Amino acid sequence: MQFEDIDSPLKLKKLEENQLPDYAVWLREFLIGKIAELGGHFAANLGVVELTIALHYVYNAPEDKIIWDVGHQSYAHKILTKRKSLFDSLRKLDGISGFPKMSESEYDAFGTAHSSTSISAALGYAQAAKLLKLNRQHIAVIGDGAMSAGQAFEALNNAGISDTNITVILNDNHIGIDPSQGALGEYLDQLDYKSDNLFTDFGFQYFGPIDGHQLPQLLEVFKRSKDITGPKVIHVRTIKGKGYAPAEAEQTKWHSTSKFDKLSGKGIESSDNHIKYQDIFGKTLLELAEKDTKVVAVTPAMVSGSSLNFMQDKFPDRVFDVGIAEQHALTFSAGLAASGLKTFCCIYSTFLQRAYDQLIHDIALQNLPVIFAVDRAGLVGEDGPTHHGVFDLAFLQTVPNLTILSPSNQLELRNAIYFAYQHINGPIVIRYPRGKSSEPYIASEIQTESIPKAKLVHKGQSNTVILSIGTILEEALKAAEKTDVSVVDLRFAKPIDETFIKDVFNTYQNVLTLEEAQVLGGIGSHIAQLAFENKFKGTLKQLGIKDEFVQHGTIAELRKIQGIDAESLVKVINSQF
Amino acid sequence: MQFEDIDSPLKLKKLEENQLPDYAVWLREFLIGKIAELGGHFAANLGVVELTIALHYVYNAPEDKIIWDVGHQSYAHKILTKRKSLFDSLRKLDGISGFPKMSESEYDAFGTAHSSTSISAALGYAQAAKLLKLNRQHIAVIGDGAMSAGQAFEALNNAGISDTNITVILNDNHIGIDPSQGALGEYLDQLDYKSDNLFTDFGFQYFGPIDGHQLPQLLEVFKRSKDITGPKVIHVRTIKGKGYAPAEAEQTKWHSTSKFDKLSGKGIESSDNHIKYQDIFGKTLLELAEKDTKVVAVTPAMVSGSSLNFMQDKFPDRVFDVGIAEQHALTFSAGLAASGLKTFCCIYSTFLQRAYDQLIHDIALQNLPVIFAVDRAGLVGEDGPTHHGVFDLAFLQTVPNLTILSPSNQLELRNAIYFAYQHINGPIVIRYPRGKSSEPYIASEIQTESIPKAKLVHKGQSNTVILSIGTILEEALKAAEKTDVSVVDLRFAKPIDETFIKDVFNTYQNVLTLEEAQVLGGIGSHIAQLAFENKFKGTLKQLGIKDEFVQHGTIAELRKIQGIDAESLVKVINSQF
Repeated sequence: MQFEDIDSPLKLKKLEENQLPDYAVWLREFLIGKIAELGGHFAANLGVVELTIALHYVYNAPEDKIIWDVGHQSYAHKILTKRKSLFDSLRKLDGISGFPKMSESEYDAFGTAHSSTSISAALGYAQAAKLLKLNRQHIAVIGDGAMSAGQAFEALNNAGISDTNITVILNDNHIGIDPSQGALGEYLDQLDYKSDNLFTDFGFQYFGPIDGHQLPQLLEVFKRSKDITGPKVIHVRTIKGKGYAPAEAEQTKWHSTSKFDKLSGKGIESSDNHIKYQDIFGKTLLELAEKDTKVVAVTPAMVSGSSLNFMQDKFPDRVFDVGIAEQHALTFSAGLAASGLKTFCCIYSTFLQRAYDQLIHDIALQNLPVIFAVDRAGLVGEDGPTHHGVFDLAFLQTVPNLTILSPSNQLELRNAIYFAYQHINGPIVIRYPRGKSSEPYIASEIQTESIPKAKLVHKGQSNTVILSIGTILEEALKAAEKTDVSVVDLRFAKPIDETFIKDVFNTYQNVLTLEEAQVLGGIGSHIAQLAFENKFKGTLKQLGIKDEFVQHGTIAELRKIQGIDAESLVKVINSQF
Repeated sequence: MQFEDIDSPLKLKKLEENQLPDYAVWLREFLIGKIAELGGHFAANLGVVELTIALHYVYNAPEDKIIWDVGHQSYAHKILTKRKSLFDSLRKLDGISGFPKMSESEYDAFGTAHSSTSISAALGYAQAAKLLKLNRQHIAVIGDGAMSAGQAFEALNNAGISDTNITVILNDNHIGIDPSQGALGEYLDQLDYKSDNLFTDFGFQYFGPIDGHQLPQLLEVFKRSKDITGPKVIHVRTIKGKGYAPAEAEQTKWHSTSKFDKLSGKGIESSDNHIKYQDIFGKTLLELAEKDTKVVAVTPAMVSGSSLNFMQDKFPDRVFDVGIAEQHALTFSAGLAASGLKTFCCIYSTFLQRAYDQLIHDIALQNLPVIFAVDRAGLVGEDGPTHHGVFDLAFLQTVPNLTILSPSNQLELRNAIYFAYQHINGPIVIRYPRGKSSEPYIASEIQTESIPKAKLVHKGQSNTVILSIGTILEEALKAAEKTDVSVVDLRFAKPIDETFIKDVFNTYQNVLTLEEAQVLGGIGSHIAQLAFENKFKGTLKQLGIKDEFVQHGTIAELRKIQGIDAESLVKVINSQF
């Protein structure tokens, strides 16, 4: 058996145990080469090469259920479960996903991508196995960062008394994207094999700590624990980025990468001087923090992803990284705001879904002045359906007391942040996308304003207008170049500028609304309500994300599929709807 | 100082320490008398009489921040913080709330009502105090049941390394509404004062366990711990229902009560033979469970509230009470469903907000066949804004792959449950209200059907029609008696019956939509979109909950305020909108 021919657990099992360390070397090199070519999640995948091999060598997937928490570390698993030949399609449109996906393979026992769900899902499978009298193993592989999220504890609390065959493999590497936060990490560091500990307190048998890069130790503990019934924790220590020196040295930077040169470790994407939206936020926040000691920021484990490092470097005491703990992050922010601090709660759009009740109950209902910096709003591209921030406009606009800004470009984002800072007396959401602004960075003057207003950004000659919200405005403007429509930037999703819209209904015959978010329940639906309220008798159509989950691909590809790229808009405009 | 004159911490502090036990006796009697008269949360309030007195005797509210987790146990606190004279207005329209409420009193440091937020909020206050150099104490009082929810652990993980003045008082009474679930409860039972334990592992100083009904012990530990800096846990053991024998004997039944006779413990509300919606669900589920061994049910600590006791009594192995752990409950349900079990996940509407990401990510995206029994949908009355299930239609309809039924009466609810059971091949939500059906119970035949259809339930003579969703239909039917409108029961919120609605647009001139849920982003907004799609040229108006939080009061009062009672409908109809 040549190493390169191994693409299934069956073939892997044909190797002798003593060949596995050599195979691990080969597989790690293969992964480094592939990710250098393709881009993708990197350091976490290198950290679990031995673990993945040992799991598929000892257990019998797909009968045994292996669930990868978060799942960005599942590349070796994908290669070993019949997707080696598909690997070049990774994260591309119609290609394989960067995360485990049930519909992609029977070996992906549960789809993941947001953290801390694996123990819950494994326990569901395990309780079902008990009822259905199925003799199988259930394995959740979860990092120490993911373990800090409440759901993991809810599941431990439940699993510990469950008398099921559930094995939690704690992949302890001290880091999520940024270093892990909180008391748990410090606690795990001092654990040794003799201890009664947190896990035994919860009713688990504890195995470890094990060096997660030593295959003989891994094989031994998996084989030994497999025959012992009841819930088990196997504590494995690994190094994120293992085997690629630049990644071991800079783990946060190498969490995920674009294409790079394998030898030098340098990125080979064409560089430009455009700025990421997250950096516009981070730099603007730093400006405010320098002016006002009451400005503080909270993030659930996304310091670098939210570009809070600008502020953290200068004011470490005023940036709170609470770990992967979205629910806590919001209520904690509420407590800060209730004390009079100007609190920026920085959270990705889809992770805000984790704290929806806290948003409603602890912040909106109490009308507490928290400013939400909601990054990754709209389509995110290659990370796919779990990460597209397309539900936020609908689930946010229905909540009373919220002000929601969805700026359309970098200048608007800077203005929005200043607006929120200057006028905050209740919760304000500012949502902005992943990726870069379409222009070079401008250290612009701030144009402050005091009331939510929409803006006519292009005046056409026809009686058709596009009402756009957010950075999808760029598609509307491109469409306007090829037609003679007018384009409005709504800017505020809530309160919506009703005076302006009333005027639109009096001026135009055909109104098109455009949002990079679900159409059902979205801003367009509110405008449809207003149209009837204002006795509008023209034509109105809502464009946005259809009532379906959007797969992975480039943002350009996905906008086209969803019919919200400039070309699609031109067609709709020319059809008179 | 007469005991009955004490209505503030200042007056309380005028008592000598040795008078406090007698005052506790008086206060407990006062509470029993008041709740017997008024109804409300009962047993939890009796359990914390001594604790509340000791807290306000030792600490200095409102400077010191006392946060009551869940907050249904805050009645003694309200009496001791200037609301004794308002107590007869408890839970009544414009009266004081049954929960802590920031806008009601400066002594309510943080509004609560859903569990497990108190440590997060207290930590926010505590970190702010550090930055603002305020010398104050921060106390979170949290039950052992609430401690099982993930957010409490997220907060412990964060607070343990915080070096703040935060004191977590663990009110350990073995019970939430139903007995506490999971490994944590068993673990807490064996704690003694000598232990290194879970809390010290997390960086807290541990005090206890203390008998929570002994004032001298409570005063001693509060005074001693107050002067020690850093995060602390004080472990207090109490008895829910303490001092009222019927409540101590049946703690679940006495969690919350209607008016009752103090001597006999018997309810004095007029009884009828109408049935609660939750019981219709519970009985129908039992029918299915008897027929099919693959039917299982999951609840996050709401066995009795969801009437799962019918099924649990007969099939205890197939009912999973996972404790207060909404996120885990959903992903766990996903694991059961992925194994082929017919999984009913039973959760209140506002608690589903706690697991919105799991609903989207783990269930809807993977199209897993979980049936959601969403109780307490729509207005709930006296529990107020934290418990009104008015956001669900908006936040659910925007999620792809969901089927959403909102039955309008008990027969429709039974049919909906059977429909879901028979046709499940993806996630199905059935939402139904708190309270009783307007008719006596009918052990009805099931009318099965296979496709989502709306239904004309009343044919009027005019060209006006009401499209109603859910049990608010009763108001539409009453309005129809006084006008000549037609009434349609939409039945399915998603997929909405577009064929039927198209027909409505062709038949009627004036269309009124009606939902007991937020109008913004709700079902009416979808119908407005469909109206434009179908070139409807008539009048369309959406009725539902306005863009504001609804306070507490009776459902009749609240419907009137929101303009969705029969009388308001008649006015709108007569205005021709």
